[in-house]
Amino acid sequence: MAKDESVTRRSPCPVSCTLDILGDRWTLLVIRDLMLGRSRYKEFCASPEGIPTNILAERLERLLQYEIIEKAPVSPESKRMAYHLTPKGKALKPLLVEITKWGLQWEEGTEARMQKKNTDT
Amino acid sequence: MAKDESVTRRSPCPVSCTLDILGDRWTLLVIRDLMLGRSRYKEFCASPEGIPTNILAERLERLLQYEIIEKAPVSPESKRMAYHLTPKGKALKPLLVEITKWGLQWEEGTEARMQKKNTDT
Repeated sequence: MAKDESVTRRSPCPVSCTLDILGDRWTLLVIRDLMLGRSRYKEFCASPEGIPTNILAERLERLLQYEIIEKAPVSPESKRMAYHLTPKGKALKPLLVEITKWGLQWEEGTEARMQKKNTDT
Repeated sequence: MAKDESVTRRSPCPVSCTLDILGDRWTLLVIRDLMLGRSRYKEFCASPEGIPTNILAERLERLLQYEIIEKAPVSPESKRMAYHLTPKGKALKPLLVEITKWGLQWEEGTEARMQKKNTDT
């Protein structure tokens, strides 16, 4: 699938290239939600941070383009879509773990209270 | 030191709180540069991604506010400043390592060619 032409690499540095895709205040929150077992558009919208719907739609499209997530109908006859992490997306788990650990250790008032909905991610 | 009042937490989730501080395309590149031993404003400007000077100045100020970096004169008589990571900033190393590993594994054409200038960070 063609990559989003609007995202241009600034250098070949892997940190820079990763931030070209994920470096904003919202994208990794959607990845967090997917890792917690959320899969539906309305579930992402219901997260406490209150992601604006236009930003959510744009981020989901970008994540699909980069093959970090995939989407499929909730059931064979349904038009409602569910999103899931691909292997490339699941490989972001250690990064999310380190973000969580740093926040818990260094930012007062953070809480590790997020619960997984299921265990398959 | 007072925190930047413009940065409001969206939730107590440690992922969200970390992204409130670091979630953009540039901040973690400055952290990368500091980990590579760069410490001067002009050194950050010289990195291949070409950070705009107004963004660099704003990010350095925010990192100072959050006590992720500190600044001091290059020498006792100098007015030129050098920036260094605090313990809170050095604690971002595992996060940078995971970002690097993910980029190298999943984004074609990335290169692990950054060299450390010294070994004290």
